[in-house]
Amino acid sequence: MDRRNFNRLIVSFGFSASVAPGLIEESARLLAYPSAGPRTGRESLPSVGFDKLCYRVGDRPFYLYSGEFHYFRVPKKDWRRRMELFRAAGGNCIATYIPWLIHEPEEGQFTFGGSDGVTDFEGFLDTAQEAGLYVIARPGPYQYSELKYGGLPAWLFEKYPQILARTIEDRPIHGDSVSYVYPVFLEKAGAWYEQVCPIIARHTLSRRGPIAFVQIDNEMMGVHLWNGTADYNRDSMGFGQIEGRYPRYLRRNYKDIQELNATYGTNYASFEAVRPIAVSSTSNPNELRRMKDYFEFYLESTAEYAQILANWLHKHDIDVPLVHNSGGVDMDVLYEDIARALRPNFLLGSDHYYELDQNWAQNNPTPQYALKIFCSLEILRLMGFPPTVMELPGGSGSDWPPVTPQDARACYWANLALGMKGNNFYIFTGGPNPPGVGTTSDIYDYGAAVGADGSIRPLYYVQKELGEFLQQHLWLCAAEREHDFRVAVDLHGSIADNYWKSRGDFLLTDAEAWDLTRRGVLNSGFCASLSPILCDLRSDDWVGDKTTPVVIVSSSCMEADQQKRVMQFLRAGGKALILPVLPSHDDNFKRCTLLSDFLGSPRIHANDTSFPRITIAGVVNIENNMENFVTATLPAQAQVIGNDETTGIPIAWQLKTEGNGEVIFLGFRWFHTMHEHERMMKTLLERLGLKQIVLCSNPNVWTSLRTGENKSSLFILNLSSSPMEAQITCRPRLRPQAVDTGNHKLPAMTVKYVDVYPGS
Amino acid sequence: MDRRNFNRLIVSFGFSASVAPGLIEESARLLAYPSAGPRTGRESLPSVGFDKLCYRVGDRPFYLYSGEFHYFRVPKKDWRRRMELFRAAGGNCIATYIPWLIHEPEEGQFTFGGSDGVTDFEGFLDTAQEAGLYVIARPGPYQYSELKYGGLPAWLFEKYPQILARTIEDRPIHGDSVSYVYPVFLEKAGAWYEQVCPIIARHTLSRRGPIAFVQIDNEMMGVHLWNGTADYNRDSMGFGQIEGRYPRYLRRNYKDIQELNATYGTNYASFEAVRPIAVSSTSNPNELRRMKDYFEFYLESTAEYAQILANWLHKHDIDVPLVHNSGGVDMDVLYEDIARALRPNFLLGSDHYYELDQNWAQNNPTPQYALKIFCSLEILRLMGFPPTVMELPGGSGSDWPPVTPQDARACYWANLALGMKGNNFYIFTGGPNPPGVGTTSDIYDYGAAVGADGSIRPLYYVQKELGEFLQQHLWLCAAEREHDFRVAVDLHGSIADNYWKSRGDFLLTDAEAWDLTRRGVLNSGFCASLSPILCDLRSDDWVGDKTTPVVIVSSSCMEADQQKRVMQFLRAGGKALILPVLPSHDDNFKRCTLLSDFLGSPRIHANDTSFPRITIAGVVNIENNMENFVTATLPAQAQVIGNDETTGIPIAWQLKTEGNGEVIFLGFRWFHTMHEHERMMKTLLERLGLKQIVLCSNPNVWTSLRTGENKSSLFILNLSSSPMEAQITCRPRLRPQAVDTGNHKLPAMTVKYVDVYPGS
Repeated sequence: MDRRNFNRLIVSFGFSASVAPGLIEESARLLAYPSAGPRTGRESLPSVGFDKLCYRVGDRPFYLYSGEFHYFRVPKKDWRRRMELFRAAGGNCIATYIPWLIHEPEEGQFTFGGSDGVTDFEGFLDTAQEAGLYVIARPGPYQYSELKYGGLPAWLFEKYPQILARTIEDRPIHGDSVSYVYPVFLEKAGAWYEQVCPIIARHTLSRRGPIAFVQIDNEMMGVHLWNGTADYNRDSMGFGQIEGRYPRYLRRNYKDIQELNATYGTNYASFEAVRPIAVSSTSNPNELRRMKDYFEFYLESTAEYAQILANWLHKHDIDVPLVHNSGGVDMDVLYEDIARALRPNFLLGSDHYYELDQNWAQNNPTPQYALKIFCSLEILRLMGFPPTVMELPGGSGSDWPPVTPQDARACYWANLALGMKGNNFYIFTGGPNPPGVGTTSDIYDYGAAVGADGSIRPLYYVQKELGEFLQQHLWLCAAEREHDFRVAVDLHGSIADNYWKSRGDFLLTDAEAWDLTRRGVLNSGFCASLSPILCDLRSDDWVGDKTTPVVIVSSSCMEADQQKRVMQFLRAGGKALILPVLPSHDDNFKRCTLLSDFLGSPRIHANDTSFPRITIAGVVNIENNMENFVTATLPAQAQVIGNDETTGIPIAWQLKTEGNGEVIFLGFRWFHTMHEHERMMKTLLERLGLKQIVLCSNPNVWTSLRTGENKSSLFILNLSSSPMEAQITCRPRLRPQAVDTGNHKLPAMTVKYVDVYPGS
Repeated sequence: MDRRNFNRLIVSFGFSASVAPGLIEESARLLAYPSAGPRTGRESLPSVGFDKLCYRVGDRPFYLYSGEFHYFRVPKKDWRRRMELFRAAGGNCIATYIPWLIHEPEEGQFTFGGSDGVTDFEGFLDTAQEAGLYVIARPGPYQYSELKYGGLPAWLFEKYPQILARTIEDRPIHGDSVSYVYPVFLEKAGAWYEQVCPIIARHTLSRRGPIAFVQIDNEMMGVHLWNGTADYNRDSMGFGQIEGRYPRYLRRNYKDIQELNATYGTNYASFEAVRPIAVSSTSNPNELRRMKDYFEFYLESTAEYAQILANWLHKHDIDVPLVHNSGGVDMDVLYEDIARALRPNFLLGSDHYYELDQNWAQNNPTPQYALKIFCSLEILRLMGFPPTVMELPGGSGSDWPPVTPQDARACYWANLALGMKGNNFYIFTGGPNPPGVGTTSDIYDYGAAVGADGSIRPLYYVQKELGEFLQQHLWLCAAEREHDFRVAVDLHGSIADNYWKSRGDFLLTDAEAWDLTRRGVLNSGFCASLSPILCDLRSDDWVGDKTTPVVIVSSSCMEADQQKRVMQFLRAGGKALILPVLPSHDDNFKRCTLLSDFLGSPRIHANDTSFPRITIAGVVNIENNMENFVTATLPAQAQVIGNDETTGIPIAWQLKTEGNGEVIFLGFRWFHTMHEHERMMKTLLERLGLKQIVLCSNPNVWTSLRTGENKSSLFILNLSSSPMEAQITCRPRLRPQAVDTGNHKLPAMTVKYVDVYPGS
């Protein structure tokens, strides 16, 4: 490392961000907070666990406030001081990668310990233990972290190029993308785990060490899917081999090869003869099924990989929960197989970046960001995990555009508002990259709260403010968002665009349904000051609850069980808004009209009028910015409540079902742009019994009401670059009357917190 | 129109935006500005013209401050009051479409006049004349303006579907995209012009009317290119016809069919037998040339269309300048043929939107927006026009995300800072759509400064503040941006992606060079506090000036004349930074290495090292976020000043040329993310004699120094969602010493104006 460069870099960061003066003064006060002084002895840390609601230490709710802190980058002499700084900011945990490429620079030559800190992982654990911080240990194999080959050793790729993941055309996907279950890769990764696991095992909580969680791998599947493809490595997948993975998978899923041939429209002689087809925009249901099968098989193979890593850890008696970080808000559902394989002692979190550089559409946490993280936090909740943001931006890999303290603050509080129960700042502090391993600068600074040189940045005080708030509001850990309507989707739809690329003869794909959920239903809902939650059509959880209306966003294909579940809900008197089409097929692309038949077999098709004029339930002038579907044949007894004025054809109708259920069908697909979209959503849900719990005068100001056992608080979000004003009333369930919270003046990029029960 | 809906809509706009209290008070004060009272008589308006520097009334510089104001939407009884409001805001002009679909609802039935105002175009002109406002009349044929069929009559498409523009596969491009030069379309459009031109002619300035400019058509080519294709209507283009347009074009450009066949690698018997090929990612230079030829032919056909429209106007003795609005910042260069055809009495402006809805990447005027409009304003200047923003956002077609007064203010001032010499707010005020013609709401409100109901919004005061400022700073009209370096590009490269989609065997496409110009060179330049201007490699204008260094961004292909021009500049002692490759071919994709030979014939190829480490001129750790090109064989006497540290191969070198010219070649393509990119740009330009004119301590704060005959002002831009602080010194050319402008605290989304000579 070039020392002059180090200094120069540090100087240059001095002006990378400015901060409002008030924030600095406030933060200076917080820094004096007395409870975070250094610990004296080697006291052991209490065991930490979690349930679906929150993290817990013993029975007590616990907010996991973690920061990424790399021993191989942060200078050893400053470890303790920076750990104390993080504790003083409310931190109770740090996370670190344990980079394979640093600890096994040549095959079979392992380096641990040493005085310079770069390889002294154990010394680091001791220091964390002394500082009283939990540790999330991330031994890989993959690290990413702006390390060469994603943190894997160069020799691995140079000596064993056969381990590379491959496209369906049998080309390497990318120079550093391995095939997870390739035997040679597993052998080498196993040897790495064999070395690192004993060290981890010696320092888990049960051995009075600080390690509370171990993360397997990193943003799994990113190395394949970000390059546009699943892995088709023929040896890993076992194409053509009787005991190969893919033939075994097919054998398990099809009675015999005839059934497969009938399903795929093929003529294979045996399971081992079957080959996948490339993902294309085919409209052939046989081919769709075949592509979907392969993708599901691929997910299963990643779960096998995760299970292998977990087994290696368990072999060394590592008894802490395992964790993994989803590669981003649209990937959470990819990890369902993994979660299923590793439960119960497993937790999935997600990475919630809003910015890296000008290639990203958004440079600050906008409402679009809020919609994304809302979905991610909800998906994690539905998967049964306390929603954890495993990488919450603690700076940025790019100097420009800057991550400012104001933007970061809005980002953190927006995540908290929408249900975050734990987080890890990526990164809390950095330092010089060990020679030859980094892909970016010599100095991995990241514009973090504590600079590579140890200086304290304004961002630190933003994290400290949140840390202190969390210590004082631990009740939020066990609090949930209150809601006044539910949005039921097949969560699997959020990842369906990996194999289902275009409609073909169907009216709507899963990906289109998911997009409508986010940019239409939820966006209009938040602007209308409604309070949505998600529920999963694949689960029975939501069926018994008829207190709030359910919006069901359906593609043309819905599993038969899901269709039955909707019918069951309606038969029991539930109220549902179904849009924008009705399922005509099941999840295997086979004809299945259970729900449609239950509703009286309406005939629905795309509206091909040039300039339709949409009116729904008395709301006129609704902008048709995507498309609408008309009902050519109405069910008997259906009452038309919306139509295309040009043709007069119904677009929306209402129906009482068997069992006193209430259904509105809305043949409309939009993304939110106009106040009419808000009014339509609200009006339709009111017809289904909506009782709105928050009233806000400004559609650009969004809210989230969180209620625990005996407390309720309202988070008020202004994620616009301009100041906003809003008059807000809310009705928390703990209080019989509505609470007028008054008129709020919200500066640009702010989230405000208001106690509504008991009032502050 | 549903009156209840009208009222409801208006109520809903009440909370669509909040505004900082200071702004309102300030604006209230401005509203009292006395000079804008109503005019008394029917005084004639002075003639207005323009030269390449600015608009002029007589000899005096004039800022065209215009607002879109549709007589067919704004209620007639409120025309005069709203015009006075705009005059009170500093307005001196209004623009209106004259929608064909309203005035010829059935073929041959023309409706003008009438008491309700919807068709009373002449009454509107009289009112504008009385109010003392110039008028830009926009008779189409196309209007867009959220009118059905882009403002063309429905009967045109119903009765004459053959007029539709067509794809190369002979399918209609879109239901409302006409083929501009299709005879039936021209016949019908001619009949429309025949009706509307006499009215326009009666009301031009020379007839004591208010019409100062007439716009032909609207955002021409958008109806084709936004759908991804040029027009291939076989009848319009004359495929297969001896006197067809396309055969004629080819005949003019090729000596004989043998030359064409040699160029295309084809075997045609005659020019009329030639057919275009589809634009593809071909790497075959013959095919590239063929695709480029067709696109250039297509552009020529649009110029023919423009000429036809102009002839119709001139036939009716319409003597005012004609104008056109480019469809956006990336389209300006498309209109070069049109400008060439219609000069000198023609002016091109551009539309500078930053927001419409959540489909757009940016919802506020970010630095990315600043880079785009900088390029657009510079392109208009280089084309010889006073840079005019024909549609500057005066609201938004979407309610959400909102256009806020703060964002709009930052947008307006950023455009002014970067060289805008005139603008038209789209829209200043709206009203109900005439029945059956609008594609969106009944009410075309647009969140404009003056609401559809006539109410004054906070945005009004933002426009008034600018209007007053302009009245007080008319010297800015004749002021230019000062610069300390120049960026020379072939402007044609900005539209090359219409026909050149992928590299093939070339190292770099024109579109990639253009992207490097904007996101690399200019972005790093602005962050380094440098002051760039653009110049056009196709012009001689820049060659004689050796006072500042020139950055030459080259693709693999550069016209021979342009290569010679660069050599001429160097031979005369000019200093140039050339990147990221050297041209190996000319603009016809034929081998042409004039410049490379002049520089000693270096051999340059892509660097295929896995993790290159880039060091340029002492700046280490430069993030290689796109790619670099190494020089395998250096020119004799070249001094290496940068390399890939991994391989040691040179990436940058410096050379003295014949005639004492100075060249740095930089084989690097990036988009700006890191401070190292800034330092690299600055260091390299300093080696070429850069004398920086503005020093700013914060890379997130950008500046623009504008200097006129005896005044200099600095515009300071903070287009981030957070407050920023910056220390700024500058060196205007009118003053011998540097001016310390002090420390600036800039709230989020603000542009600050500082007089630097003479000081304020």
